[in-house]
Amino acid sequence: MSGMSHETPEMPEDGPAGGPEDRPADERGGPDGPALRVGILTVSDRVSRGEAEDRSGGRIRAWCVERGYEPAIEAVVPDGTAAIVPVLLNWADGGRADLILTTGGTGFTPRDRTPEATDAVLDRTASGLAEALRRRGEQATPFAVLSRGRAGLRGDCLIVNLPGSPSGVADGLEVLEPLLEHGSLLARGREHPHRTSGSVEPSGSDGASGSRGTSGSHRTGSDDTPGGSP
Amino acid sequence: MSGMSHETPEMPEDGPAGGPEDRPADERGGPDGPALRVGILTVSDRVSRGEAEDRSGGRIRAWCVERGYEPAIEAVVPDGTAAIVPVLLNWADGGRADLILTTGGTGFTPRDRTPEATDAVLDRTASGLAEALRRRGEQATPFAVLSRGRAGLRGDCLIVNLPGSPSGVADGLEVLEPLLEHGSLLARGREHPHRTSGSVEPSGSDGASGSRGTSGSHRTGSDDTPGGSP
Amino acid sequence: MSGMSHETPEMPEDGPAGGPEDRPADERGGPDGPALRVGILTVSDRVSRGEAEDRSGGRIRAWCVERGYEPAIEAVVPDGTAAIVPVLLNWADGGRADLILTTGGTGFTPRDRTPEATDAVLDRTASGLAEALRRRGEQATPFAVLSRGRAGLRGDCLIVNLPGSPSGVADGLEVLEPLLEHGSLLARGREHPHRTSGSVEPSGSDGASGSRGTSGSHRTGSDDTPGGSP
Repeated sequence: MSGMSHETPEMPEDGPAGGPEDRPADERGGPDGPALRVGILTVSDRVSRGEAEDRSGGRIRAWCVERGYEPAIEAVVPDGTAAIVPVLLNWADGGRADLILTTGGTGFTPRDRTPEATDAVLDRTASGLAEALRRRGEQATPFAVLSRGRAGLRGDCLIVNLPGSPSGVADGLEVLEPLLEHGSLLARGREHPHRTSGSVEPSGSDGASGSRGTSGSHRTGSDDTPGGSP
Repeated sequence: MSGMSHETPEMPEDGPAGGPEDRPADERGGPDGPALRVGILTVSDRVSRGEAEDRSGGRIRAWCVERGYEPAIEAVVPDGTAAIVPVLLNWADGGRADLILTTGGTGFTPRDRTPEATDAVLDRTASGLAEALRRRGEQATPFAVLSRGRAGLRGDCLIVNLPGSPSGVADGLEVLEPLLEHGSLLARGREHPHRTSGSVEPSGSDGASGSRGTSGSHRTGSDDTPGGSP
Repeated sequence: MSGMSHETPEMPEDGPAGGPEDRPADERGGPDGPALRVGILTVSDRVSRGEAEDRSGGRIRAWCVERGYEPAIEAVVPDGTAAIVPVLLNWADGGRADLILTTGGTGFTPRDRTPEATDAVLDRTASGLAEALRRRGEQATPFAVLSRGRAGLRGDCLIVNLPGSPSGVADGLEVLEPLLEHGSLLARGREHPHRTSGSVEPSGSDGASGSRGTSGSHRTGSDDTPGGSP
């Protein structure tokens, strides 16, 4: 059922952050909460110096708007951990974003330190997500395996390093999109009254919690339990 | 040669612990040792409170019995590192199990801390194993990439985090089964007199030690050496 | 062709900077720099004791010669972190090699500590590279997922753990070869005057820097920037 309802969600979005009203609820972060708030952090010496346009950050912003997510906060910083870490800490610990997407700085040059900055703030790593991004990237270019990007949680904020190129960002968002309803939103949804009811057993092999559907109709607080009721 | 002998193990089981006599040797942990002793750790708030049945732990137990492994020790603990770490330490350092399989707590909710508890006790990580489990899981559900499960060694005890759902456990065991004869048993087999004889060069690209066959007929102590004799 | 010539390297290695002049520039590390200098570290108790031939190290050396890379420095050490770490530090920090390839010690036996020794010296991990090596290895044997090999940078030196078997080494080199022009050479090329000119936007989804071509004609210092000019 949850799989069937992707195209025909019936519940209106009514959360505080709102979203475009002409979009179906399941594209705005689910019916039982506000729109997902996304922090967009562009990491680039050249963009930060005004020498280049922030095309990748722009691509993420466009995706947020298109999906009904809220591009809640944005910044451009130069490469290097010194500039990145404080932004990640501020956005995550200050509750400014449910999801932080970085773009840039994941490569092999001496200035590429976004993964190290991310490691410095993550409480709980989710390397499967970083693996999935690279595998998808590999379909476009074999060099995608060189991305050193990380993914994981700080508190209930999911942080994901995307590659620096606009096309790499697009590929990464394609991977993330169906997963966001499961991973990040679950963390965000903790405060929602409906979250711990309606527990269902995941029928797949996922190790993460929550319902498998992306319609949000059966979102659960924690059913990553061996004895989840059927 | 070792590849050919999969189906026709010729050597009788003669280890101290034994196994079901009606099973071929290669299903009992190999001819030169006792059955693999498996520790089963169910991590679940609900199961630990008696609110849900431990279906995933039960699934692991059934698999052990079916394969001729020994479900040597079992426990159910609530989520969170505080309860998990002492059990892992006790079982691994106390020599209670050759392989510890956990189920549950690998997701994104605040209580999901099994990977962090596992990190805290591992001496040597085997992320390739965790990667393989996720890739197999992805065949069942795209959300499998959200599993944050770890794998690795503490001393000579292999610890693997499986997902929380019974179906996720089943998928994981399917991946592990052919590998166990290679990885975990090798560590366990250190004390066996036959272990360092009959060294063969791995003919595949595995970076791990030992023979490729699962019949145990050419198990070796350490042939992950560049100059292994052919 | 490259596969056929493994056993018959014909060209003598002769100089620290140069490469065979009858090879095209793109097989010598690019037109704007000296040949890639490769450090070859064989990790094996048996080879270090003279009990086995260093076939895997020899395979790496032959590959270097064939590709126009310089096998700049080589060593054989016993298993265990104590012997490996000082060699990695010396070669990387002493500027002895642009790329260090280790072979052996990535498995599950108690002596297999090459990944831990590598972890101890890496500044920046590149787990996507290690993942790619395992996925390629899996095509040859399911046990490849047991390789615990690491990859990453210390300073501008790329260090990659290859499996211990000659066939595993060959598979690993096959994965690395097309990537080296992108990752490792980029780090090495920092001092080159041409490096920061001719920036191009990566057209694929790679998170790493530099041009996608292997001809070296558009190698760049850092174009992993979201606003790279088209």
